[in-house]
Amino acid sequence: MEETFIPFRGIKNDLKGRLSCYKQDWTGGLRAGYRILAPTTYIFFASAIPVISFGEQLERNTEGTLTAVQTLASTALCGIIHSIIGGQPLLILGVAEPTVLMYTFMFEFAKDRQDLGPKLFLAWSGWVCVWTALLLFIMAILGACSIINRFTRVAGELFGLLIAMLFMQQAIRGLIDEFRIPERANRVETQFLPSWRFGNGMFAVVLSFGLLFTGLRSRKARSWCYGTGWLRGFIADYGVPLMVVVWTGISYVPFLEVPKGIPRRLFSPNPWSKGAYSNWTVITEMTDVPPLYIVGAFIPATMIAVLYYFDHSVASQLAQQKEFNLKKPSSYHYDLLLLGFLTLLCGLIGVPPANGVIPQSPMHTKSLATLKHQLLRNKLASTARKSIAQNSSLTQLYGDMQEAYNQMQTPLVHQPTTLGLKELKESTIQMASSSGDMDAPVFEPAFDVDKDIDDLLHVEVKEQRLSNLLQSLLVGGCLAAMPFLKKIPTSVLWGYFAFMAIESLPGNQFWERILLLFTAPSRRYKVLEKCHVTFLETVPFRTIATFTLFQLTYLLLCFGLTWIPIAGVLFPLLIMLLVPVRQYALPKFFKGAHLTDLDAAEYEESPALQYGLEASDGTGIASGRADDAEILSEMITRSRGEIIHVQSPKITSSSSGTFDDIRLERSPRVGELRVARSLRLGRTTSAGSHGTPSPRPSPLARGSRG
Amino acid sequence: MEETFIPFRGIKNDLKGRLSCYKQDWTGGLRAGYRILAPTTYIFFASAIPVISFGEQLERNTEGTLTAVQTLASTALCGIIHSIIGGQPLLILGVAEPTVLMYTFMFEFAKDRQDLGPKLFLAWSGWVCVWTALLLFIMAILGACSIINRFTRVAGELFGLLIAMLFMQQAIRGLIDEFRIPERANRVETQFLPSWRFGNGMFAVVLSFGLLFTGLRSRKARSWCYGTGWLRGFIADYGVPLMVVVWTGISYVPFLEVPKGIPRRLFSPNPWSKGAYSNWTVITEMTDVPPLYIVGAFIPATMIAVLYYFDHSVASQLAQQKEFNLKKPSSYHYDLLLLGFLTLLCGLIGVPPANGVIPQSPMHTKSLATLKHQLLRNKLASTARKSIAQNSSLTQLYGDMQEAYNQMQTPLVHQPTTLGLKELKESTIQMASSSGDMDAPVFEPAFDVDKDIDDLLHVEVKEQRLSNLLQSLLVGGCLAAMPFLKKIPTSVLWGYFAFMAIESLPGNQFWERILLLFTAPSRRYKVLEKCHVTFLETVPFRTIATFTLFQLTYLLLCFGLTWIPIAGVLFPLLIMLLVPVRQYALPKFFKGAHLTDLDAAEYEESPALQYGLEASDGTGIASGRADDAEILSEMITRSRGEIIHVQSPKITSSSSGTFDDIRLERSPRVGELRVARSLRLGRTTSAGSHGTPSPRPSPLARGSRG
Repeated sequence: MEETFIPFRGIKNDLKGRLSCYKQDWTGGLRAGYRILAPTTYIFFASAIPVISFGEQLERNTEGTLTAVQTLASTALCGIIHSIIGGQPLLILGVAEPTVLMYTFMFEFAKDRQDLGPKLFLAWSGWVCVWTALLLFIMAILGACSIINRFTRVAGELFGLLIAMLFMQQAIRGLIDEFRIPERANRVETQFLPSWRFGNGMFAVVLSFGLLFTGLRSRKARSWCYGTGWLRGFIADYGVPLMVVVWTGISYVPFLEVPKGIPRRLFSPNPWSKGAYSNWTVITEMTDVPPLYIVGAFIPATMIAVLYYFDHSVASQLAQQKEFNLKKPSSYHYDLLLLGFLTLLCGLIGVPPANGVIPQSPMHTKSLATLKHQLLRNKLASTARKSIAQNSSLTQLYGDMQEAYNQMQTPLVHQPTTLGLKELKESTIQMASSSGDMDAPVFEPAFDVDKDIDDLLHVEVKEQRLSNLLQSLLVGGCLAAMPFLKKIPTSVLWGYFAFMAIESLPGNQFWERILLLFTAPSRRYKVLEKCHVTFLETVPFRTIATFTLFQLTYLLLCFGLTWIPIAGVLFPLLIMLLVPVRQYALPKFFKGAHLTDLDAAEYEESPALQYGLEASDGTGIASGRADDAEILSEMITRSRGEIIHVQSPKITSSSSGTFDDIRLERSPRVGELRVARSLRLGRTTSAGSHGTPSPRPSPLARGSRG
Repeated sequence: MEETFIPFRGIKNDLKGRLSCYKQDWTGGLRAGYRILAPTTYIFFASAIPVISFGEQLERNTEGTLTAVQTLASTALCGIIHSIIGGQPLLILGVAEPTVLMYTFMFEFAKDRQDLGPKLFLAWSGWVCVWTALLLFIMAILGACSIINRFTRVAGELFGLLIAMLFMQQAIRGLIDEFRIPERANRVETQFLPSWRFGNGMFAVVLSFGLLFTGLRSRKARSWCYGTGWLRGFIADYGVPLMVVVWTGISYVPFLEVPKGIPRRLFSPNPWSKGAYSNWTVITEMTDVPPLYIVGAFIPATMIAVLYYFDHSVASQLAQQKEFNLKKPSSYHYDLLLLGFLTLLCGLIGVPPANGVIPQSPMHTKSLATLKHQLLRNKLASTARKSIAQNSSLTQLYGDMQEAYNQMQTPLVHQPTTLGLKELKESTIQMASSSGDMDAPVFEPAFDVDKDIDDLLHVEVKEQRLSNLLQSLLVGGCLAAMPFLKKIPTSVLWGYFAFMAIESLPGNQFWERILLLFTAPSRRYKVLEKCHVTFLETVPFRTIATFTLFQLTYLLLCFGLTWIPIAGVLFPLLIMLLVPVRQYALPKFFKGAHLTDLDAAEYEESPALQYGLEASDGTGIASGRADDAEILSEMITRSRGEIIHVQSPKITSSSSGTFDDIRLERSPRVGELRVARSLRLGRTTSAGSHGTPSPRPSPLARGSRG
């Protein structure tokens, strides 16, 4: 993204970029067929359940002025509009916790003023929205989103983890509240006897942990051993919604023994009940607000604008992380402009506005990556089977698959080249070449269709607008389904909150580094086996630990800030402070090369990391004759699938000398990780000062050369 | 074991065998040091907790005549005597559920007789024990245990699974009862209000599932990534007892809110309370029993004798399964004789007798196998490190380790040869030989001390008497610790019962075959990756399924029988019926070779399984030039570590041609498993009728030959 502050330039660029792929956004979605329903349902639940819960919270805090009906309506409306005319369709919109907190503060303020009061609260908050929209327009036009470039991984992941903590906090708090008598409850009812409160609480523990465990399990169903493939796929795709239904069913098992209200269930008025409409006509009352308050509305508006600017952009950024290898352009400026319009609209019809939400937006991208993987996989598998049936050689087979892969790609103006398939595995080539002829027909043992195709595919995302539109429509449908939603126990909700918090963790490098701190030194190599992260090989553990502890301290500071009543809403400011900290303070404490590996920043000239440079600082990296400059690019490429320099993969001959195999060896004397590229280098020389004799070339290398 | 029915012959053989290693039984245990405490604690809990729970059950059923004090005393007493002068010290003794059921029936019978009544019940049951002991003596002397040889895996594993089902049933039933008002309870207490019953039940669900999950997790702590090695080892060794303490602690968290009795806790009188002694002097009352009842006591005595004969022998057999590679002899006859004496003793002091228990006995052996593995591992690792530091070659290193291994072995009269280390891994040899010289110094990359040593070790068991003695003493110590034991919630007990049931499943081939029925055909190969079971390769899936379904039907029949009031105690008879069924009926329905693989019977002449024989029946086994007769023995040896023909492993040269690598390939056309021995055979020919072209020799083989 170009860093520009010329008025309208950013918006124009965004529009140009997104318009060029607008048609494909729809056709691509439609072409996915019924499979699009899997990510749609997944995100619909992740989107609707918190919104309902926030609505319930708002209902308590605003004495019934705003309810789940309004939060759902706002989420659906904004979601539909954004999915159709918005820029980045991966971004999910919804009424978020900060909005709820702001509206709560605003209600507290308004209800005690004689010339405002609960009656004019919605009209006044309409004015707040007007001002907010104005501020958002200005920011969008002046290109404020340009500095989103300066938000590096360190800030984004910290924010992601903070949101996960807030979700988890909500889950725990909600669960504890199940043991207590809710505020504004009629205390004489049977269900509020201490004995039933205890039963309600314990039942809540069972239901929420039940949902959490089964939900987490179901996501891994695809790798289960039991059941047919169809069933496993279904459970993996729809397991979480299914579990919400199952545990809601279980909550009805003891219905004969327990009084009404045990377990506690969702509360919301039906949208067709009397009084649920009153807010829609708020625009007619807006002129009744005293002028002083209209001006004063500017103060909360600035806070909300800052909040939305940050939230919306970071949610969008996290949905477009590098490792997803997105092909369509971003649209920060235009989306912020649209958010301004949406805020205005929501204010005028008296509902709380929606903005880009975390963790739903990155969850959306992740689920679409799974979808794309399924689609590519099926296509390649059928091609491979056909090719094998025709007695193709491995070269032909690979060519056929490459062709089928290309057919699945739509060339885009923005990024005309496709990623292509990954190179074939070393072992596959060897197995085929050991028959002496690369042109001999290839058989299943050499190329296992079911297993080897996964290794050929990069992470790619089915980028389209359909899933976002459908999930928004479903959220709207919740309004009609309110009588059914009210059957869900609140404890299932808390379990779902915890589920969302945990689901947002994998892939967050900050989280993985925290785990690394607790990993026994002798097991650190296992982290590398799971996910190949560059920094583990290039940065000394002590530096990783220091960096992570700094980030952790900052996180706890931000978390602490959210506990302070009104200032808490502005915790994004503290996170924004990370930008100068990262840009000016951190480079003083960490080496440039280390910082690049831990937290690559586009604005920094990436210092050329000379191969073998680190050998002298005791980190134990094996240096070697870097006779092939590709090693470095290979190394960086391997970092969680980020593509920095992709070469078109080719099989030119039966020689497998072009493959790189990073082999990990643990030196017992320093207990650190050491990397030897056994295949490409053939022979690595001793690393640094610890005097371990040089490892011999790998037998595999010898085998393929002999 | 010799099959003999000559009086006293079996007992004499047993005594001779066990006496020859008696001294080593103690010295070996003492030499293990503090590490012996891990299996001791593990088995102590597995032994004491059910005994306490059965005592509570007995207390309800016998109107307080017998309590947990008596069951604990009996278990401790019999355990101590058996561990010191018993034959097989791996066998764990305890008061078991069938005994409780028999005593319940006997009490029901006695209490309504005017000339017997509750007062003379213990004296009468003393007579029952006298008769039982007499019958056990006769059986032991006449060598009835000889037919235990005819109890094949199919019977033993069916019994093991049945016991697991009964434990699980008890766990579920116990949990459901937590929602109900216990019998003989004072219904006016607060804790018996319906609302508190509901709370108690839900709390019980939380506590029992909490114990179950954390207990199961803790057993796997050794492979965790987090925490130091010491902590992981500690949690793996003592995690379950620790979790009982932790969850008991958690059960006290809501003590302010809940009335006394929530959650329900263990109930037992303290052994020093008034009246707890009355039973010890029962011998003085035995003459008061009317003569008719003395004679009539023979009827329950026969049932108990049959039950004990079966239970005791099968528990002993399951503790000595082939895959444990035990080195010390069995002692069925002598142990049955001793059981007779113990029963007599228990009868005369008025406590219910103890007998060999499942699953504790096999659990005991398994935990001692883990202990032995730890001991061998530590010794070998330090030897290997020393050897590597001295720049040894791989041949020397292996020799050093072999020597260290042999030092750990005590040559026994019974079985003078030791198992020896397994051969080195193919990859290790290749890695070392690729340096061109097997006599060059070996380095960590070629031989990874931490990882490769595990692959060298066979399953072996630390066979000694100390752990059994210590755990029996600890059970005795429970009597003194009764005030603390009474703090454990009953729901933690139910969780522990479920834990025991689940812990007894792994290694049970019957269970694994049941799981196989539900495994998707495309994933069946994964079962082979986990545990190498011969039958999967040699027996057609349809045959495996039929055999398993037959066994499952039989299991359900046995389970159904336990539900029939008094006849239920005799379910072992139905299992004994399996012996003739297995010997005469099953061979009519299954091929001899298949039966041998599914259920090897010592009395059957194992038909020579010709290599390639199965190729024609469509099971898809790759046949080949069986130019090496060792393939078959290798194949059988690999079956779960059973050693049928062990060769002394040697490295003679740098050639790695003596290693066998079973490679699995899935043929997509038949979806069955196919085995190709890529290394040894070099080239395998096409298998059977499905016409898949022959796989090429593995690149590894080429590599090592080139």
